[in-house]
Amino acid sequence: MTSIGGIVIDGLQYCRWSEKIFRDLQNGGVTAIHVTIAYHETFREMVGNIAAWNRWFDDFPDLIFHGRSAADVHLAKKTGRTAVFFGFQNPSPIEDEIGLVEICAQLGIRFMQLSYNNQSLLATGCYEAEDPGITRMGREVIREMNRFGIAIDMSHSAERSTLQAIELSTRPIAITHANPVSWRDVARNKSDTVLRALGETGGMLGFSLYPHHLKDSSDCSLDSFCAMVARTAELMGVSHIGIGSDLCQDQPDSVVEWMRSGRWTRQMTGATFPPQPSWFQSNLDFPGIAAGLRQIGFQEHEIAGIMGGNWLDFFERSFDPMVDQPAAANSA
Amino acid sequence: MTSIGGIVIDGLQYCRWSEKIFRDLQNGGVTAIHVTIAYHETFREMVGNIAAWNRWFDDFPDLIFHGRSAADVHLAKKTGRTAVFFGFQNPSPIEDEIGLVEICAQLGIRFMQLSYNNQSLLATGCYEAEDPGITRMGREVIREMNRFGIAIDMSHSAERSTLQAIELSTRPIAITHANPVSWRDVARNKSDTVLRALGETGGMLGFSLYPHHLKDSSDCSLDSFCAMVARTAELMGVSHIGIGSDLCQDQPDSVVEWMRSGRWTRQMTGATFPPQPSWFQSNLDFPGIAAGLRQIGFQEHEIAGIMGGNWLDFFERSFDPMVDQPAAANSA
Repeated sequence: MTSIGGIVIDGLQYCRWSEKIFRDLQNGGVTAIHVTIAYHETFREMVGNIAAWNRWFDDFPDLIFHGRSAADVHLAKKTGRTAVFFGFQNPSPIEDEIGLVEICAQLGIRFMQLSYNNQSLLATGCYEAEDPGITRMGREVIREMNRFGIAIDMSHSAERSTLQAIELSTRPIAITHANPVSWRDVARNKSDTVLRALGETGGMLGFSLYPHHLKDSSDCSLDSFCAMVARTAELMGVSHIGIGSDLCQDQPDSVVEWMRSGRWTRQMTGATFPPQPSWFQSNLDFPGIAAGLRQIGFQEHEIAGIMGGNWLDFFERSFDPMVDQPAAANSA
Repeated sequence: MTSIGGIVIDGLQYCRWSEKIFRDLQNGGVTAIHVTIAYHETFREMVGNIAAWNRWFDDFPDLIFHGRSAADVHLAKKTGRTAVFFGFQNPSPIEDEIGLVEICAQLGIRFMQLSYNNQSLLATGCYEAEDPGITRMGREVIREMNRFGIAIDMSHSAERSTLQAIELSTRPIAITHANPVSWRDVARNKSDTVLRALGETGGMLGFSLYPHHLKDSSDCSLDSFCAMVARTAELMGVSHIGIGSDLCQDQPDSVVEWMRSGRWTRQMTGATFPPQPSWFQSNLDFPGIAAGLRQIGFQEHEIAGIMGGNWLDFFERSFDPMVDQPAAANSA
């Protein structure tokens, strides 16, 4: 059981799901996780991935259930289970169809990245050479996501697109899994400008524990990680940060090839999953992070916020439909 | 029969196809046309549109057949029929899958626009506020289109994307239906910079007869049109220009709504098709354009080129697979 005794929420995981990992979630005291339902999938393919989760929910009802609202986090805590929130890392499942935003909300999708590494129909990814910002369709989709309670996630998006998404969205947005570029200078990490704008608008950053996002990669120390959290708390405010581990436990390397190359290129990267840092190998390791935060000087209520309370607050503000907001008016 | 006695090729049409129009093509002396198979369709939806053409080819074998090569233009001329070449106005049918470029070539697709008004996965459309140029996936797709003999068409693309496509493509590209922006200043028309680069690289411009692209719109005079052709010949070279009428004969206004709004927005434009200029109402009117070009001072061999010979030359250079060009090498 976790030593912090509170709510633990992980802002992103993409494990190879199994009974073992569902038991780890329970034994690690993880109240809720946001899981990836699609990287490059079409709408139809994505629905198949939801169907796979529905089978897991049927098979392990004492361990996991489909989370749709902040209330489900409290229910998970009360019943000793983990609430599983669905999200897309790419807008590919809404294809070119604005009406699919509402359909996805009805299917329980609660996060969607506007782009994944590459240019999408909506926004630019962090590996493109140029970043024109949010597209015509992107502006329409942001409005629909705001209406129906799907949180905008810019983890794999480029800088200007991210700043524009923060500005265009009427609700706070998230970067579910990334770290400050000042700590580890890679395209996936975020500038102080982005992080400050995110915090000022009530958004959330989930700190990644994926080695490519960590200083010293797989050799990153818990102390270094916690010191980075402390500096980011000063930049963004301690109530706008949480964990988004990007844990890909037990995945074969073929999955990292799918993530990077999808179907869009004939060039294979040959990439493999890097080893996790010794202090974060599985869902059993959240208490160690809480202990590290205590060691670096965070107070108990701050630790409770970072480990899950801040995400819970974001969930409360993000997932209800905005019933008063009408659809876009017709224009000539 | 056309008065020029030669080959007539129209670089773009999207009529509501019927026996009447197929007979017009024959009676107007039209040897070949490039027709639109997809605006916003997915791969699967696009295949249904090809199937519809296959039924027309079955029903009207004395009037039309599926054109795949420059040789088919000669066959059409010899047999008094019209060769119908397929193209996409949007890359939506290849979805996010690089392998679908080759599949589309196998299905007889010979042109593909890299974007249609909006940002696509490959390039930027002419109505976006910003134009970052060709994307990561766009570079891969250009290479595949070059390999398999699908001509790049940038009619609805933005300026920088178009200039980059010209530069990145190892084969000449086309702007199948547009006019110089210096003549009619609308987002769909093209700058002298683009037109000069297009001509210098062996590419082709098809002059549009769609009223929104014409000076004075539906009231545009044949003289004004032919004078514009003469000025553009000076800019680009007389062997790099042709006709791309964008004829949308007999289409209901619901089609223009589909073209503009697709599925990407909830905002309907309420747009309607404008009336055609009096001197270009149908496929019967090509001889009149040839007469206008003669009137303005073009020589007979130049007129033959503009009316079809230049497109035929482009077809000869564009549609054969480049058997020597390997697939993209793997890279790390």
